[in-house]
Amino acid sequence: MSLKPTTPKGTRDFSSKVLSKRNYLKMILQKAFESFAFEPLETPSFERLTTLMGKYGDEGDRLIFKILNSGDKLKKVDLNSLKNNNLKEFSNSLSEKALRYDLTVPFARYVAGNQNDLIFPFRRYQIQNVWRADRPQHGRFQEFCQCDADIVGERSLLQEVEMIFLYDRVFFDLKLEEVTIKVNHRKILEGIVKLIGNENQLIDFTVAVDKIDKIGVEGVEDELLSKGFTADSINKIKPIINLKGDFDKMLLDLEILFKNIPDGLKGLEELRFVFNKIKNIGLKSLKLSFDLTLARGLNYYTGMIVEVNGPSNVKMGSIGGGGRYDDLTSSFGMKDMSGIGISFGFDRIYLILEDLDLFPDNIVNNTQILFLNLGAESSDIALNSLGKLRSLGIACEIYPSEIKMSKQLNYANKKNISFVVIIGDEELKNKKFTLKDMFSGEQNKYLLVDLIKTLEKTSKV
Amino acid sequence: MSLKPTTPKGTRDFSSKVLSKRNYLKMILQKAFESFAFEPLETPSFERLTTLMGKYGDEGDRLIFKILNSGDKLKKVDLNSLKNNNLKEFSNSLSEKALRYDLTVPFARYVAGNQNDLIFPFRRYQIQNVWRADRPQHGRFQEFCQCDADIVGERSLLQEVEMIFLYDRVFFDLKLEEVTIKVNHRKILEGIVKLIGNENQLIDFTVAVDKIDKIGVEGVEDELLSKGFTADSINKIKPIINLKGDFDKMLLDLEILFKNIPDGLKGLEELRFVFNKIKNIGLKSLKLSFDLTLARGLNYYTGMIVEVNGPSNVKMGSIGGGGRYDDLTSSFGMKDMSGIGISFGFDRIYLILEDLDLFPDNIVNNTQILFLNLGAESSDIALNSLGKLRSLGIACEIYPSEIKMSKQLNYANKKNISFVVIIGDEELKNKKFTLKDMFSGEQNKYLLVDLIKTLEKTSKV
Repeated sequence: MSLKPTTPKGTRDFSSKVLSKRNYLKMILQKAFESFAFEPLETPSFERLTTLMGKYGDEGDRLIFKILNSGDKLKKVDLNSLKNNNLKEFSNSLSEKALRYDLTVPFARYVAGNQNDLIFPFRRYQIQNVWRADRPQHGRFQEFCQCDADIVGERSLLQEVEMIFLYDRVFFDLKLEEVTIKVNHRKILEGIVKLIGNENQLIDFTVAVDKIDKIGVEGVEDELLSKGFTADSINKIKPIINLKGDFDKMLLDLEILFKNIPDGLKGLEELRFVFNKIKNIGLKSLKLSFDLTLARGLNYYTGMIVEVNGPSNVKMGSIGGGGRYDDLTSSFGMKDMSGIGISFGFDRIYLILEDLDLFPDNIVNNTQILFLNLGAESSDIALNSLGKLRSLGIACEIYPSEIKMSKQLNYANKKNISFVVIIGDEELKNKKFTLKDMFSGEQNKYLLVDLIKTLEKTSKV
Repeated sequence: MSLKPTTPKGTRDFSSKVLSKRNYLKMILQKAFESFAFEPLETPSFERLTTLMGKYGDEGDRLIFKILNSGDKLKKVDLNSLKNNNLKEFSNSLSEKALRYDLTVPFARYVAGNQNDLIFPFRRYQIQNVWRADRPQHGRFQEFCQCDADIVGERSLLQEVEMIFLYDRVFFDLKLEEVTIKVNHRKILEGIVKLIGNENQLIDFTVAVDKIDKIGVEGVEDELLSKGFTADSINKIKPIINLKGDFDKMLLDLEILFKNIPDGLKGLEELRFVFNKIKNIGLKSLKLSFDLTLARGLNYYTGMIVEVNGPSNVKMGSIGGGGRYDDLTSSFGMKDMSGIGISFGFDRIYLILEDLDLFPDNIVNNTQILFLNLGAESSDIALNSLGKLRSLGIACEIYPSEIKMSKQLNYANKKNISFVVIIGDEELKNKKFTLKDMFSGEQNKYLLVDLIKTLEKTSKV
């Protein structure tokens, strides 16, 4: 019986056409990162299991792809845990390595492991695949590409400003319009829970608020009630998260509310600094919005948080996000490593560019020239010319076998090859070759001695 | 207790410096592949386990990294096989997916799955990581990069010729000298076993001969004896594999030996065609050698086989290899798909270029310009200028906080930044800025209004 030639669900093959677009997107991102003075980094596809487990919450832990131990190590399997239906323990006894789940934890491991060699503040970007055992759906895959940029080792708010400009640069270069960046601050959220008397429930609060786009205001209220927030305190939240208007107005309104809450005031002060710098210089592409419902689920954020959303007519969820954190590396024994990181949702941005037809036309690399195969003498000339043309960077090939000319031309047509070189008996007799333009159908004869010169000129047009 | 910040054994982090060299090598390969009209392909990191198992022999199967099933699927574990010490069955019951072991099997799966959409002959290249649970050693990793180029759907020998020219092009572009390409033909090896009367033991013969570099002629003899070859037939082999001289001489000698063995003669005829084409045009870099001891372990080769070795003063084993196969895809239900494929040992080539100091000096991307942080007014000017310079593709940054100037300059020094812009109180007063060349130490003052123009000119030098 033969095997089904399919990929595992949630994974994809990338053909030449798709790759040329993915590489275009990657190139725009790389150019932006490098002009912003970020250095590239790549980490291994798998990490020690202990490096990853416990970093992403229970839900995240479940989605980590573990690598099965091999050989005699398999005998160390903990069968009791299987009996007790403790599948987590059971699988941990079968595995010592796991596929990268995100780029942040490997980065933290790298910074801690190389702290004596790195120059701080350390600016790195990383564009690599990550793997999650998630249910595949539109725009969500089990293997997908992440792009992160982080600066660690410094608390200066200029870095918050730079990260927003980095987003602006990328979406400007991609010609993707109507992208919104929502901004909030963890300390403002802290201020709000203090204000309503639920000081110790910041995480319950942010987890609930984070779902507002999915479950609506009422869903958030229900969740907060279930977490023990009183109806009274929930009523106090509403007018706050409904605050509208321009930044200055919102900041002033909040300042009054937070007058006895220093943390909240600190958050406001930091955002004011960032907003003012941005306003002075101006964004080329992004719309900036101060959004008090933005929470970001991840608990390691401590300062400004951001989330980027694509045009509202394309349903795709967030296409980027990040924020300031105060403690990247302490689980690896390195304290007090503050930083800021942002992330680009490569695959979702790709789908949006595709939907909106924003990939340039000229990025696909096709064969430019095909030499027809018309016998030994003809193909010897072709073979000799191919080497020279290829050294000039011209993509060219010879049809490998001497089949009917119409079939060879058909191959050129199907492959969108621009030019065909014909060196048949008549051409050989006259020391000429025929050059056929496959798009216009036009064909002309030139001297064989001028072949390289002619083709070089033609393919540069 | 804090975690050890290390990568799993056999894996590596790639810092900016290393990546710039890896990207250089990748770029040379890509340019060569694309000018030879190969299309890029990327396949997922993991495949269905059934796609991979049984394709690489028992030894290969053992080295495949399997991905542990998650959730309730774990309960389907086959505990009997564990009891019976059948670890292969046991691990198969725990896994449905595995990491890519090479690029050939995923390529075969892709060709079979997309046979109706592909245009044949199909020329693809693929540069991606593969994973093997191999014992790590110098030049051998558990995660490493493979580069393959294949042409499938055609039997024309011109493709054999093209593949040798592709190797020649790459090593010429890399300026790596004294690279040898050994060539042999499976049908010649078949002819030899027929000649000595061991017709049905081609595989035993090739597996043994393949080890000649490691275990020597005597080791090969011992292995053949243990496989049931008689001393008599082994004695017949020796003078054959010791045949020396130029191609024409060797081909003629073999022709006499093979006079009653049509397969052997067919092999000779094919190699003669290839050698003649190569000789007519000439190689720019490679040394071609006809080597009757070259066997290539993999059983799927059926025609010409090649192996590439680096300069003899660098001990690194083979840095490339490949050959003609007749049956790429039949395990996926697609018969008669002949093709030819070659492979480049990316990580080994990298190590050789490193050893021989062959990476160009100018491939590392550093920050070109650092703006010192000397207070709000100064940094506002900097922030504004950064955006403009970055749009011009100039890598630049501002020191994020206002610390001592000497410390900021120290940062520039450690990062090898070429130029520093100083806008202090005195400069602000005179509407000027100071540009300091960090290599020469020279510094000059220019008008602030000319800042972008000046820096653009400077950083292009």
